[in-house]
Amino acid sequence: MYAPLCHWVWGGGWIGEMGALDFAGGTVIHISSGVAAVVAARMLGQRKDFGKPETDPHDLTMTVLGASLLWFGWFGFNAGSALAADGLAAHAFVVTNVAAAMGAISWMGVSWWRQGHPSVLGAACGAVAGLVGITPAAGFVTPMAAIIIGLGAGVFCFFAVDLLKHVIKLDDALDVFAVHGVGGIWGALATGLFATTAVNAGAADGLFNGNAEQLWIQFVAVVAAIAFAGTVTFVILKVIDMTIGLRVQEEEEVLGLDTTQHGELAYRL
Amino acid sequence: MYAPLCHWVWGGGWIGEMGALDFAGGTVIHISSGVAAVVAARMLGQRKDFGKPETDPHDLTMTVLGASLLWFGWFGFNAGSALAADGLAAHAFVVTNVAAAMGAISWMGVSWWRQGHPSVLGAACGAVAGLVGITPAAGFVTPMAAIIIGLGAGVFCFFAVDLLKHVIKLDDALDVFAVHGVGGIWGALATGLFATTAVNAGAADGLFNGNAEQLWIQFVAVVAAIAFAGTVTFVILKVIDMTIGLRVQEEEEVLGLDTTQHGELAYRL
Amino acid sequence: MYAPLCHWVWGGGWIGEMGALDFAGGTVIHISSGVAAVVAARMLGQRKDFGKPETDPHDLTMTVLGASLLWFGWFGFNAGSALAADGLAAHAFVVTNVAAAMGAISWMGVSWWRQGHPSVLGAACGAVAGLVGITPAAGFVTPMAAIIIGLGAGVFCFFAVDLLKHVIKLDDALDVFAVHGVGGIWGALATGLFATTAVNAGAADGLFNGNAEQLWIQFVAVVAAIAFAGTVTFVILKVIDMTIGLRVQEEEEVLGLDTTQHGELAYRL
Repeated sequence: MYAPLCHWVWGGGWIGEMGALDFAGGTVIHISSGVAAVVAARMLGQRKDFGKPETDPHDLTMTVLGASLLWFGWFGFNAGSALAADGLAAHAFVVTNVAAAMGAISWMGVSWWRQGHPSVLGAACGAVAGLVGITPAAGFVTPMAAIIIGLGAGVFCFFAVDLLKHVIKLDDALDVFAVHGVGGIWGALATGLFATTAVNAGAADGLFNGNAEQLWIQFVAVVAAIAFAGTVTFVILKVIDMTIGLRVQEEEEVLGLDTTQHGELAYRL
Repeated sequence: MYAPLCHWVWGGGWIGEMGALDFAGGTVIHISSGVAAVVAARMLGQRKDFGKPETDPHDLTMTVLGASLLWFGWFGFNAGSALAADGLAAHAFVVTNVAAAMGAISWMGVSWWRQGHPSVLGAACGAVAGLVGITPAAGFVTPMAAIIIGLGAGVFCFFAVDLLKHVIKLDDALDVFAVHGVGGIWGALATGLFATTAVNAGAADGLFNGNAEQLWIQFVAVVAAIAFAGTVTFVILKVIDMTIGLRVQEEEEVLGLDTTQHGELAYRL
Repeated sequence: MYAPLCHWVWGGGWIGEMGALDFAGGTVIHISSGVAAVVAARMLGQRKDFGKPETDPHDLTMTVLGASLLWFGWFGFNAGSALAADGLAAHAFVVTNVAAAMGAISWMGVSWWRQGHPSVLGAACGAVAGLVGITPAAGFVTPMAAIIIGLGAGVFCFFAVDLLKHVIKLDDALDVFAVHGVGGIWGALATGLFATTAVNAGAADGLFNGNAEQLWIQFVAVVAAIAFAGTVTFVILKVIDMTIGLRVQEEEEVLGLDTTQHGELAYRL
């Protein structure tokens, strides 16, 4: 059986009953958060500075450090979803690392091809994309499948960022939908492609192991997660909009939210 | 039996014999360090810049990062004090996380009420206060008690900082007494309130589980720790003062200790 | 038996057969990387800014943070080389910590004596030197030997930095040879001095436990690692030099590699 660590949070019960595979909560965490982000970004609208250099990362060393700590913490998350210090946990640990590394490589490669430079920011984004992609699959797929899942996550999420930020011009400040939403959907579907009972006897095979139905089940789970997270986020934000208000005043935005909302500055140099 | 990881450091032997409960060294580490800090701050006197903005944290991202790494490291400290990878270690892990989260929430709440803004600096301080508070109790109390201990730590330590810094004007640069001393005393006494043999059959019940004597024992241990750490710190610093000297020359302080004592600068921009 | 985690990477098979002890890969990782660094630094030549303050660390808080994360991660590396969560892993964990602490102390002490100031940069370098030194020995030596290995690593690596940077004027930007190469050689030889079957019944005794031959075997392994890494690095870099080219154009170096090669800046302030 798979470990439903975060599963009870919402409709997971129903998704679980229909037999969807989600080892460490890729559907309930990453697809949900990605969809919630796209709804929130749409309802809030763009920041006044959107697209200007002011919104670029200002300290890449912290970006790399944060991505590294995420990578490390993800081991606890994915391997911990075995709910035991056993061989399945070690397996989840290994495929998590493989997918993160592959995501870093493929994102860096694609960004090198498209933008002329391999960037460390791209490597950091790609690693997170790979981690997101492997999350639902970690206890069900082989390391070879993890390589494909990681490579795919880096490529799909790169193009999703490009599309959302530069074509659709959605101001999703942390690229939550492009990385967590798209990566999560890819991971959930890839679980339906690559899952094998050779890794986890208590789970199910995927399409490439002769069980086409699993891919359909994963697809339904993805659609359910999107519908649920999208609807509930819309309702919550609508209620906040009509009561407290969703967006700060224009002068507050110009001054900056650190000053006007939190009364503190990140740096005093 | 409780795990006396740091207990042998000093009078812990005697405290242990009288039956004081201190799971991961809250008395011997946090009360001691807090009391040592207040004695040292008193003997050294205020910095010349005390109370000016120059002494505010200059890089909040590092503060938050440091608090996060502390939070993570504390799991090794508190859960590791079970001296085994068993259920008691997992229990200590869980209550540690709960108390840290509650400390962050309550400090942030109180500072919002008193200062008009919820600050990330407050959340970081509150998490550390919660971690300090749960340290002696981690292997003896329920998660429900951990919620109360964490909430209490955030509130008590917030007001202790306020009192020491703004009323008494003690220049305890890192708020060691307010957070570690007050948080440690609260945690030691709270262990005497909430301890239950339902969590740790080898330990003892606290006041709320029908054993009022435990609270008295905890109180004696707290007083002993304060007396010991206060006296020994005073003697050590007095000896240093009469030999090497405790405080740098005024011109060295104006130039900064990084330059004059360590010959290095934190930043070269 | 010793755990050959990284051993298969290259000639480790042959070194293993002759009975060299290398618990967590000190020979195959640290001596190799150190020798590769010295060859690369020689073939690349000095940076144009070599020796100027521009090449000093510009953010010591990140240096200390990085060294701390390395120290923590090293536990996984050295203790993990036991390939089991057993007593040997715990032993490797403890001696790793001891050696790191001793390296920090001795480097700081020597730099205090030679340069007039104990510096936090020195403590960070010394801790890494101690970690490097204990890596091959972690599963074979007592904590008492770990103290000597750590102290020695701090002293030897300090003088190696001094010699290479200020006398030979080799531009090894991260002091890889001085810390990883010299520390790795010291650790490999020290394993031949201090190894004891009292710690690891499946391994061998060293010179101080009556088995002089082990020191000879360690010496041969060190020479083999130096010869192999030096030759292979030379060939690889020669091929790169004749095809892609090893060094950027002068104007690119003046502008900075972040800008010209990666198209991104570390900081936007």
